[in-house]
Amino acid sequence: MNGAGPIARLVDQFARLPGIGPKTAQRLAFHILNEPPETARSLARALVEAREKVRRCSGCCDLTDGDPCAICRDPRRNREVICVVEQPRDVMAVEKSRGFRGLYHVLHGAISPMSGVGPGELTIRELMERLAKDGVREVILATNPNVEGDATALYLARLIKPSGIRVTRLAHGLPVGASLEYADEMTLSKALEGRQDLG
Amino acid sequence: MNGAGPIARLVDQFARLPGIGPKTAQRLAFHILNEPPETARSLARALVEAREKVRRCSGCCDLTDGDPCAICRDPRRNREVICVVEQPRDVMAVEKSRGFRGLYHVLHGAISPMSGVGPGELTIRELMERLAKDGVREVILATNPNVEGDATALYLARLIKPSGIRVTRLAHGLPVGASLEYADEMTLSKALEGRQDLG
Repeated sequence: MNGAGPIARLVDQFARLPGIGPKTAQRLAFHILNEPPETARSLARALVEAREKVRRCSGCCDLTDGDPCAICRDPRRNREVICVVEQPRDVMAVEKSRGFRGLYHVLHGAISPMSGVGPGELTIRELMERLAKDGVREVILATNPNVEGDATALYLARLIKPSGIRVTRLAHGLPVGASLEYADEMTLSKALEGRQDLG
Repeated sequence: MNGAGPIARLVDQFARLPGIGPKTAQRLAFHILNEPPETARSLARALVEAREKVRRCSGCCDLTDGDPCAICRDPRRNREVICVVEQPRDVMAVEKSRGFRGLYHVLHGAISPMSGVGPGELTIRELMERLAKDGVREVILATNPNVEGDATALYLARLIKPSGIRVTRLAHGLPVGASLEYADEMTLSKALEGRQDLG
Protein backbone atom coordinates (compact mmCIF):
# COMPACT_ATOMS: atom_id res chain seq x y z
CA MET A 1 0.00 0.00 0.00
CA ASN A 2 1.58 3.24 -1.17
CA GLY A 3 1.20 5.88 1.57
CA ALA A 4 1.05 8.79 -0.88
CA GLY A 5 -0.93 7.01 -3.60
CA PRO A 6 -4.53 7.29 -4.79
CA ILE A 7 -5.91 5.09 -1.98
CA ALA A 8 -4.32 7.30 0.69
CA ARG A 9 -5.61 10.40 -1.10
CA LEU A 10 -9.16 9.00 -1.19
CA VAL A 11 -9.00 8.06 2.51
CA ASP A 12 -7.73 11.56 3.25
CA GLN A 13 -10.54 13.21 1.27
CA PHE A 14 -13.19 11.16 3.07
CA ALA A 15 -11.58 11.97 6.43
CA ARG A 16 -12.05 15.71 5.75
CA LEU A 17 -15.84 15.29 5.86
CA PRO A 18 -17.43 16.22 9.20
CA GLY A 19 -17.95 13.29 11.56
CA ILE A 20 -15.86 10.91 9.44
CA GLY A 21 -12.85 9.65 11.40
CA PRO A 22 -9.79 7.93 9.90
CA LYS A 23 -11.19 4.39 10.39
CA THR A 24 -14.50 5.25 8.74
CA ALA A 25 -12.69 7.05 5.92
CA GLN A 26 -10.65 3.92 5.28
CA ARG A 27 -13.75 1.73 5.33
CA LEU A 28 -15.50 4.03 2.83
CA ALA A 29 -12.46 4.10 0.54
CA PHE A 30 -12.16 0.30 0.45
CA HIS A 31 -15.90 0.05 -0.16
CA ILE A 32 -15.54 2.29 -3.21
CA LEU A 33 -12.56 0.25 -4.46
CA ASN A 34 -14.54 -2.99 -4.10
CA GLU A 35 -17.56 -1.70 -5.99
CA PRO A 36 -17.91 -1.39 -9.78
CA PRO A 37 -16.28 1.80 -11.16
CA GLU A 38 -19.76 3.26 -11.76
CA THR A 39 -20.23 3.67 -7.99
CA ALA A 40 -17.23 5.98 -7.71
CA ARG A 41 -18.22 7.85 -10.87
CA SER A 42 -21.84 8.39 -9.72
CA LEU A 43 -20.77 9.85 -6.40
CA ALA A 44 -18.13 12.02 -8.12
CA ARG A 45 -20.70 13.28 -10.61
CA ALA A 46 -23.28 14.03 -7.90
CA LEU A 47 -20.66 16.00 -5.94
CA VAL A 48 -19.57 18.19 -8.81
CA GLU A 49 -23.08 18.64 -10.19
CA ALA A 50 -24.58 19.62 -6.83
CA ARG A 51 -21.78 22.06 -6.04
CA GLU A 52 -21.98 23.67 -9.49
CA LYS A 53 -25.75 23.88 -9.94
CA VAL A 54 -26.95 24.66 -6.45
CA ARG A 55 -27.36 28.35 -5.60
CA ARG A 56 -29.19 30.35 -2.97
CA CYS A 57 -32.75 31.20 -3.98
CA SER A 58 -33.06 34.94 -4.58
CA GLY A 59 -36.35 34.82 -2.64
CA CYS A 60 -35.88 32.71 0.49
CA CYS A 61 -32.10 32.07 0.41
CA ASP A 62 -32.71 28.29 0.55
CA LEU A 63 -30.39 26.15 -1.56
CA THR A 64 -31.87 25.38 -4.96
CA ASP A 65 -30.91 24.43 -8.50
CA GLY A 66 -33.60 26.67 -10.05
CA ASP A 67 -34.09 30.30 -9.07
CA PRO A 68 -36.57 31.05 -7.53
CA CYS A 69 -36.85 27.73 -5.72
CA ALA A 70 -39.79 25.35 -6.10
CA ILE A 71 -41.47 26.64 -2.93
CA CYS A 72 -41.06 30.34 -3.75
CA ARG A 73 -42.55 29.86 -7.22
CA ASP A 74 -45.42 27.60 -6.07
CA PRO A 75 -48.62 29.67 -6.54
CA ARG A 76 -50.46 27.58 -3.92
CA ARG A 77 -48.21 28.73 -1.07
CA ASN A 78 -49.46 31.46 1.24
CA ARG A 79 -47.19 34.48 0.67
CA GLU A 80 -48.41 36.28 3.78
CA VAL A 81 -46.58 34.00 6.23
CA ILE A 82 -42.81 33.48 6.34
CA CYS A 83 -41.20 30.77 8.43
CA VAL A 84 -37.62 31.78 9.33
CA VAL A 85 -35.24 28.84 9.84
CA GLU A 86 -31.51 28.49 10.40
CA GLN A 87 -30.60 25.92 7.76
CA PRO A 88 -31.83 24.33 4.51
CA ARG A 89 -32.28 21.05 6.41
CA ASP A 90 -34.81 22.83 8.65
CA VAL A 91 -36.91 23.66 5.57
CA MET A 92 -36.92 19.94 4.76
CA ALA A 93 -37.97 19.11 8.35
CA VAL A 94 -40.87 21.60 8.40
CA GLU A 95 -41.99 20.51 4.92
CA LYS A 96 -42.08 16.89 6.09
CA SER A 97 -44.39 17.88 8.96
CA ARG A 98 -46.90 19.09 6.31
CA GLY A 99 -48.04 21.64 8.89
CA PHE A 100 -46.99 24.77 6.99
CA ARG A 101 -48.10 26.17 3.63
CA GLY A 102 -46.39 29.57 3.65
CA LEU A 103 -42.94 30.59 2.45
CA TYR A 104 -39.55 30.23 4.13
CA HIS A 105 -36.50 32.32 4.84
CA VAL A 106 -33.20 30.54 5.47
CA LEU A 107 -30.75 32.47 7.67
CA HIS A 108 -27.81 30.09 7.03
CA GLY A 109 -26.86 30.09 10.68
CA ALA A 110 -27.72 31.66 14.00
CA ILE A 111 -26.21 34.52 15.94
CA SER A 112 -23.38 33.07 17.99
CA PRO A 113 -20.76 35.38 19.52
CA MET A 114 -18.88 32.26 20.65
CA SER A 115 -18.38 31.14 17.01
CA GLY A 116 -17.96 34.69 15.75
CA VAL A 117 -21.28 34.69 13.86
CA GLY A 118 -22.97 38.09 14.04
CA PRO A 119 -26.19 39.29 12.39
CA GLY A 120 -24.15 40.41 9.36
CA GLU A 121 -23.18 36.82 8.52
CA LEU A 122 -26.85 35.79 8.24
CA THR A 123 -29.39 36.63 5.52
CA ILE A 124 -31.15 39.16 7.77
CA ARG A 125 -30.77 42.03 5.30
CA GLU A 126 -32.49 39.91 2.63
CA LEU A 127 -35.29 39.07 5.09
CA MET A 128 -35.91 42.72 5.96
CA GLU A 129 -36.01 43.62 2.26
CA ARG A 130 -38.66 40.94 1.68
CA LEU A 131 -40.72 42.18 4.61
CA ALA A 132 -40.53 45.76 3.36
CA LYS A 133 -42.19 44.98 0.05
CA ASP A 134 -44.01 41.65 0.02
CA GLY A 135 -47.18 42.22 2.08
CA VAL A 136 -46.17 39.74 4.75
CA ARG A 137 -48.54 39.55 7.76
CA GLU A 138 -46.74 37.04 9.99
CA VAL A 139 -43.17 35.89 10.56
CA ILE A 140 -42.77 32.57 12.39
CA LEU A 141 -39.35 32.40 14.02
CA ALA A 142 -38.47 28.70 13.77
CA THR A 143 -34.84 28.94 14.83
CA ASN A 144 -33.61 26.12 17.06
CA PRO A 145 -34.72 26.11 20.71
CA ASN A 146 -31.18 26.60 22.04
CA VAL A 147 -29.09 29.60 23.16
CA GLU A 148 -28.08 30.70 19.64
CA GLY A 149 -31.51 30.10 18.12
CA ASP A 150 -33.27 31.94 20.96
CA ALA A 151 -30.85 34.88 20.70
CA THR A 152 -31.43 35.06 16.95
CA ALA A 153 -35.20 34.95 17.40
CA LEU A 154 -35.06 37.72 19.99
CA TYR A 155 -32.87 39.85 17.73
CA LEU A 156 -35.21 39.36 14.76
CA ALA A 157 -38.34 39.99 16.83
CA ARG A 158 -36.99 43.38 17.93
CA LEU A 159 -36.05 44.22 14.35
CA ILE A 160 -39.42 43.22 12.84
CA LYS A 161 -41.90 44.31 15.52
CA PRO A 162 -41.78 48.09 14.67
CA SER A 163 -43.10 47.28 11.17
CA GLY A 164 -46.36 46.00 12.69
CA ILE A 165 -45.92 42.48 11.27
CA ARG A 166 -47.00 39.71 13.68
CA VAL A 167 -43.98 37.80 15.01
CA THR A 168 -44.43 34.31 16.49
CA ARG A 169 -42.15 31.57 17.79
CA LEU A 170 -42.62 27.79 17.62
CA ALA A 171 -44.23 26.39 20.77
CA HIS A 172 -42.08 24.73 23.39
CA GLY A 173 -43.45 21.60 25.04
CA LEU A 174 -43.28 17.87 25.36
CA PRO A 175 -42.45 15.96 22.17
CA VAL A 176 -45.35 13.80 20.98
CA GLY A 177 -44.97 10.29 22.40
CA ALA A 178 -42.57 11.40 25.13
CA SER A 179 -43.06 10.57 28.80
CA LEU A 180 -43.00 13.11 31.62
CA GLU A 181 -40.51 10.97 33.48
CA TYR A 182 -37.79 11.47 30.87
CA ALA A 183 -38.50 15.09 29.93
CA ASP A 184 -35.77 17.52 31.01
CA GLU A 185 -36.84 20.15 33.50
CA MET A 186 -36.56 23.10 31.07
CA THR A 187 -38.89 21.41 28.58
CA LEU A 188 -41.32 20.48 31.35
CA SER A 189 -41.38 24.01 32.73
CA LYS A 190 -41.97 25.40 29.20
CA ALA A 191 -44.75 22.87 28.69
CA LEU A 192 -46.41 24.02 31.91
CA GLU A 193 -46.06 27.70 30.99
CA GLY A 194 -47.64 27.07 27.61
CA ARG A 195 -50.46 24.85 28.92
CA GLN A 196 -53.71 25.06 26.97
CA ASP A 197 -57.38 24.83 27.93
CA LEU A 198 -59.07 21.57 27.14
CA GLY A 199 -62.71 21.06 26.13
CA MET B 1 -35.86 22.14 -2.10
CA ASN B 2 -36.40 20.12 -5.26
CA GLY B 3 -36.87 16.44 -4.31
CA ALA B 4 -35.41 15.12 -7.56
CA GLY B 5 -32.69 17.77 -7.96
CA PRO B 6 -28.93 17.72 -7.54
CA ILE B 7 -29.10 18.07 -3.74
CA ALA B 8 -31.38 15.04 -3.43
CA ARG B 9 -29.10 13.09 -5.79
CA LEU B 10 -26.02 13.96 -3.71
CA VAL B 11 -27.80 12.96 -0.48
CA ASP B 12 -28.85 9.71 -2.15
CA GLN B 13 -25.30 8.96 -3.32
CA PHE B 14 -23.88 9.54 0.15
CA ALA B 15 -26.62 7.37 1.67
CA ARG B 16 -25.49 4.42 -0.49
CA LEU B 17 -22.16 4.30 1.35
CA PRO B 18 -21.99 1.68 4.10
CA GLY B 19 -22.81 2.98 7.57
CA ILE B 20 -24.09 6.33 6.25
CA GLY B 21 -27.77 6.79 7.15
CA PRO B 22 -30.13 9.37 5.60
CA LYS B 23 -29.47 12.01 8.29
CA THR B 24 -25.70 11.72 7.96
CA ALA B 25 -25.97 11.75 4.15
CA GLN B 26 -27.93 15.00 4.36
CA ARG B 27 -25.39 16.52 6.75
CA LEU B 28 -22.52 15.56 4.42
CA ALA B 29 -24.32 16.98 1.38
CA PHE B 30 -25.00 20.32 3.05
CA HIS B 31 -21.40 20.42 4.25
CA ILE B 32 -20.21 20.03 0.64
CA LEU B 33 -22.62 22.75 -0.53
CA ASN B 34 -21.35 25.14 2.14
CA GLU B 35 -17.68 24.59 1.30
CA PRO B 36 -15.78 26.15 -1.61
CA PRO B 37 -16.31 24.26 -4.92
CA GLU B 38 -12.76 22.91 -4.65
CA THR B 39 -13.83 20.64 -1.76
CA ALA B 40 -16.39 18.85 -3.93
CA ARG B 41 -13.97 18.68 -6.85
CA SER B 42 -11.12 17.25 -4.75
CA LEU B 43 -13.29 14.47 -3.37
CA ALA B 44 -14.71 13.76 -6.84
CA ARG B 45 -11.22 13.60 -8.32
CA ALA B 46 -9.92 11.31 -5.54
CA LEU B 47 -12.87 8.95 -6.09
CA VAL B 48 -12.43 8.60 -9.83
CA GLU B 49 -8.63 8.48 -9.66
CA ALA B 50 -8.55 5.81 -6.96
CA ARG B 51 -11.13 3.64 -8.68
CA GLU B 52 -9.36 3.93 -12.06
CA LYS B 53 -5.74 3.53 -10.97
CA VAL B 54 -6.02 1.01 -8.19
CA ARG B 55 -5.58 -2.65 -9.17
CA ARG B 56 -4.81 -5.88 -7.39
CA CYS B 57 -1.09 -6.55 -7.11
CA SER B 58 -0.15 -9.54 -9.27
CA GLY B 59 1.99 -10.77 -6.38
CA CYS B 60 0.06 -10.42 -3.13
CA CYS B 61 -3.41 -9.38 -4.44
CA ASP B 62 -3.33 -6.26 -2.22
CA LEU B 63 -4.78 -3.10 -3.75
CA THR B 64 -2.11 -0.95 -5.37
CA ASP B 65 -1.63 1.72 -8.01
CA GLY B 66 1.69 0.23 -9.18
CA ASP B 67 2.11 -3.46 -10.02
CA PRO B 68 3.81 -5.14 -8.21
CA CYS B 69 2.94 -3.20 -5.06
CA ALA B 70 5.49 -1.29 -2.98
CA ILE B 71 5.84 -4.15 -0.48
CA CYS B 72 6.23 -6.91 -3.10
CA ARG B 73 8.96 -4.96 -4.92
CA ASP B 74 10.82 -3.89 -1.74
CA PRO B 75 14.15 -5.83 -1.81
CA ARG B 76 14.49 -5.50 1.99
CA ARG B 77 11.39 -7.63 2.69
CA ASN B 78 11.87 -11.26 3.65
CA ARG B 79 10.41 -13.32 0.79
CA GLU B 80 10.41 -16.54 2.80
CA VAL B 81 7.49 -15.56 5.06
CA ILE B 82 3.99 -14.74 3.83
CA CYS B 83 1.36 -13.23 6.11
CA VAL B 84 -2.13 -14.12 4.84
CA VAL B 85 -4.82 -11.57 5.68
CA GLU B 86 -8.45 -11.10 4.76
CA GLN B 87 -8.50 -7.47 3.61
CA PRO B 88 -6.20 -4.68 2.41
CA ARG B 89 -6.93 -2.80 5.65
CA ASP B 90 -5.38 -5.74 7.55
CA VAL B 91 -2.12 -5.19 5.64
CA MET B 92 -2.18 -1.59 6.84
CA ALA B 93 -2.82 -2.73 10.43
CA VAL B 94 0.06 -5.25 10.43
CA GLU B 95 2.39 -2.72 8.76
CA LYS B 96 1.58 -0.19 11.46
CA SER B 97 2.60 -2.71 14.14
CA ARG B 98 6.11 -2.75 12.54
CA GLY B 99 6.35 -6.35 13.74
CA PHE B 100 6.53 -8.00 10.32
CA ARG B 101 9.07 -7.69 7.50
CA GLY B 102 7.90 -10.44 5.16
CA LEU B 103 5.38 -10.36 2.31
CA TYR B 104 1.59 -10.47 2.40
CA HIS B 105 -1.22 -12.28 0.67
CA VAL B 106 -4.68 -10.66 0.66
CA LEU B 107 -7.58 -13.10 0.40
CA HIS B 108 -10.23 -10.40 -0.12
CA GLY B 109 -12.61 -12.06 2.28
CA ALA B 110 -13.02 -15.15 4.43
CA ILE B 111 -14.87 -18.40 3.89
CA SER B 112 -18.44 -17.81 5.03
CA PRO B 113 -21.17 -20.25 4.00
CA MET B 114 -23.70 -17.87 5.62
CA SER B 115 -22.78 -15.09 3.17
CA GLY B 116 -22.24 -17.49 0.27
CA VAL B 117 -18.47 -16.95 0.18
CA GLY B 118 -16.63 -20.17 -0.64
CA PRO B 119 -12.89 -20.77 -1.17
CA GLY B 120 -13.38 -20.04 -4.90
CA GLU B 121 -14.30 -16.40 -4.18
CA LEU B 122 -10.99 -15.80 -2.39
CA THR B 123 -7.47 -15.50 -3.84
CA ILE B 124 -6.52 -18.98 -2.63
CA ARG B 125 -5.51 -20.21 -6.09
CA GLU B 126 -3.09 -17.28 -6.39
CA LEU B 127 -1.68 -18.07 -2.95
CA MET B 128 -1.07 -21.73 -3.82
CA GLU B 129 0.67 -20.72 -7.05
CA ARG B 130 2.98 -18.42 -5.09
CA LEU B 131 3.77 -21.16 -2.59
CA ALA B 132 4.54 -23.63 -5.39
CA LYS B 133 7.31 -21.52 -6.87
CA ASP B 134 8.58 -18.84 -4.50
CA GLY B 135 10.69 -20.70 -1.91
CA VAL B 136 8.37 -19.74 0.94
CA ARG B 137 9.26 -21.34 4.32
CA GLU B 138 6.43 -20.05 6.52
CA VAL B 139 2.83 -18.93 6.05
CA ILE B 140 1.35 -16.90 8.93
CA LEU B 141 -2.44 -17.15 8.85
CA ALA B 142 -3.54 -13.72 10.11
CA THR B 143 -7.23 -14.04 9.31
CA ASN B 144 -9.57 -12.55 11.90
CA PRO B 145 -10.08 -14.44 15.18
CA ASN B 146 -13.78 -15.11 14.51
CA VAL B 147 -15.79 -18.01 13.03
CA GLU B 148 -15.13 -17.12 9.37
CA GLY B 149 -11.47 -16.26 9.93
CA ASP B 150 -10.84 -19.44 11.91
CA ALA B 151 -12.60 -21.58 9.28
CA THR B 152 -10.52 -19.96 6.55
CA ALA B 153 -7.30 -20.51 8.51
CA LEU B 154 -8.19 -24.17 9.08
CA TYR B 155 -9.00 -24.65 5.39
CA LEU B 156 -5.72 -23.04 4.31
CA ALA B 157 -3.67 -24.96 6.89
CA ARG B 158 -4.96 -28.28 5.51
CA LEU B 159 -4.24 -27.14 1.97
CA ILE B 160 -0.70 -25.93 2.69
CA LYS B 161 0.57 -28.48 5.23
CA PRO B 162 1.23 -31.29 2.68
CA SER B 163 3.78 -29.04 0.91
CA GLY B 164 5.95 -29.06 4.08
CA ILE B 165 5.76 -25.28 4.52
CA ARG B 166 5.44 -24.18 8.15
CA VAL B 167 1.94 -22.84 8.87
CA THR B 168 1.34 -20.59 11.91
CA ARG B 169 -1.55 -18.60 13.31
CA LEU B 170 -1.48 -15.30 15.22
CA ALA B 171 -1.49 -15.81 19.00
CA HIS B 172 -4.71 -15.39 20.93
CA GLY B 173 -4.51 -13.66 24.27
CA LEU B 174 -5.20 -10.55 26.27
CA PRO B 175 -4.86 -7.25 24.45
CA VAL B 176 -1.98 -5.14 25.77
CA GLY B 177 -3.31 -2.75 28.41
CA ALA B 178 -6.48 -4.77 28.97
CA SER B 179 -7.66 -5.88 32.40
CA LEU B 180 -8.62 -9.44 33.29
CA GLU B 181 -11.87 -8.20 34.73
CA TYR B 182 -13.20 -7.06 31.37
CA ALA B 183 -11.74 -9.82 29.18
CA ASP B 184 -14.37 -12.12 27.70
CA GLU B 185 -14.16 -15.76 28.76
CA MET B 186 -13.06 -17.07 25.35
CA THR B 187 -10.11 -14.68 25.24
CA LEU B 188 -9.19 -15.51 28.80
CA SER B 189 -9.31 -19.25 28.16
CA LYS B 190 -7.16 -18.80 25.02
CA ALA B 191 -4.71 -16.67 27.01
CA LEU B 192 -4.45 -19.46 29.60
CA GLU B 193 -3.96 -22.13 26.94
CA GLY B 194 -1.19 -20.11 25.29
CA ARG B 195 0.55 -19.16 28.56
CA GLN B 196 4.31 -18.78 28.30
CA ASP B 197 7.23 -19.45 30.66
CA LEU B 198 8.72 -16.44 32.35
CA GLY B 199 12.39 -15.91 33.29
